[in-house]
Amino acid sequence: MSASLNTFELPIRVYIEDTDAGGIVYHVNYLKYMERARTEFLRALGVEQRDTLKQDTAYVVHSLSTRYHTPARIDDELTVTCAVKELRGASVLFGQEVRDRRTGVVQCSAEVKVVCVSATTMKPKALPAGTFRQAG
Amino acid sequence: MSASLNTFELPIRVYIEDTDAGGIVYHVNYLKYMERARTEFLRALGVEQRDTLKQDTAYVVHSLSTRYHTPARIDDELTVTCAVKELRGASVLFGQEVRDRRTGVVQCSAEVKVVCVSATTMKPKALPAGTFRQAG
Amino acid sequence: MSASLNTFELPIRVYIEDTDAGGIVYHVNYLKYMERARTEFLRALGVEQRDTLKQDTAYVVHSLSTRYHTPARIDDELTVTCAVKELRGASVLFGQEVRDRRTGVVQCSAEVKVVCVSATTMKPKALPAGTFRQAG
Amino acid sequence: MSASLNTFELPIRVYIEDTDAGGIVYHVNYLKYMERARTEFLRALGVEQRDTLKQDTAYVVHSLSTRYHTPARIDDELTVTCAVKELRGASVLFGQEVRDRRTGVVQCSAEVKVVCVSATTMKPKALPAGTFRQAG
Repeated sequence: MSASLNTFELPIRVYIEDTDAGGIVYHVNYLKYMERARTEFLRALGVEQRDTLKQDTAYVVHSLSTRYHTPARIDDELTVTCAVKELRGASVLFGQEVRDRRTGVVQCSAEVKVVCVSATTMKPKALPAGTFRQAG
Repeated sequence: MSASLNTFELPIRVYIEDTDAGGIVYHVNYLKYMERARTEFLRALGVEQRDTLKQDTAYVVHSLSTRYHTPARIDDELTVTCAVKELRGASVLFGQEVRDRRTGVVQCSAEVKVVCVSATTMKPKALPAGTFRQAG
Repeated sequence: MSASLNTFELPIRVYIEDTDAGGIVYHVNYLKYMERARTEFLRALGVEQRDTLKQDTAYVVHSLSTRYHTPARIDDELTVTCAVKELRGASVLFGQEVRDRRTGVVQCSAEVKVVCVSATTMKPKALPAGTFRQAG
Repeated sequence: MSASLNTFELPIRVYIEDTDAGGIVYHVNYLKYMERARTEFLRALGVEQRDTLKQDTAYVVHSLSTRYHTPARIDDELTVTCAVKELRGASVLFGQEVRDRRTGVVQCSAEVKVVCVSATTMKPKALPAGTFRQAG
């Protein structure tokens, strides 16, 4: 895959650890699914967190907003998407969805702003050149 | 406590289970802290989830937005706040913060919209009368 | 796959959500990995938890013992194994390991006893005939 | 509290985040409760993990065995106990229980062996003198 990639999809299976006593996926766990998709997206672009931490670089969540549409349940097969919506010097805004892989129904959608920071000072630093390309 | 209560505070201690390899609280875990505060707020108002589920009533998160300000770390003592910002027939909008208990520094702030639904159909239903009172 | 299957392997990737401030996988999370492997093992044998729950059958962990050997870290690619060590009327004893997929080093090993119960009464009931076959 | 303390109890409330689709506390979460109790036990003895990490000392779980007796459910009030069963140069064996605070019924019991290690080399090192006292 190349640096020109601007969307990504990750298949996820729902396990009992992800559910709650309401019989559905516990609401914060969709945000873990979304981070897994961002991580695999970065990996597809050649960025491994293990390596970036050694270069004093961390990608931290600055802010997010999410909307819950339809609950997912145990054993469900989901697709988590990740697209670059806006690209700035030190930050990326991702648009993400969790969908039922069989029906295509959207279960959760979110916008997540990630900032590139120095791992020691936590101060913003420029995104490595050419890592992302904006959608559109 | 009475039904006129419109704000709430819960003390929370950060444990190793809450942290990640960045040495800070893993970002989705602040949202768990916030749900604990909402749960204790409801309990102070006389609402136990165990009982409401028996009455086919569940409080589900409809949407939320959150902003991360300063990271919390292991052993930190936090205060999680919860206030009613907006009250509608079947939903409540909570304003919430996670703060360092010693310094008062805000680590994470959020708005969380919770909807009262039938636990079987997941359709909205009216909030029990007089449960909440709007701030202001 | 057939009912004669008695071992299983599941690939797992370590994400930031799995780690702790010590920079390694948080110790209870290996047990989540192991449960994912047991779930996929059951699925390969034709057992979906969603369906068994409808038949008033649940597989619950009765007891487990685990030993931690070498820590796994973020981005690591692991293999989680699952083998039937002992088979009784209402229970199965699984032997499980988490290994580094590249080096083969064992990071965590465990024995997990799972009991088949009625989901409503939580009382033991016979395992569905022919589901498992003992190793050896 | 003094260094002669050899048992400890921590009150815990069950939140929705702790439960699973079976309507009960997800089995690995009892082990998180137990680690919280060990952490507070250490704190009562004057040991803060934040400080020990600065002194290149970490307390890591070497091995554990646990048995699940009766499930806990949402809103339950639990007591988690922690006692020193065996004390060696670089390790402590804790006996722990999770009990319903109202009925006293034991829900989960465990033995957890914790080793004192160098945080950088992960090699065992002597427990700080006088930290623990063996029960009995």
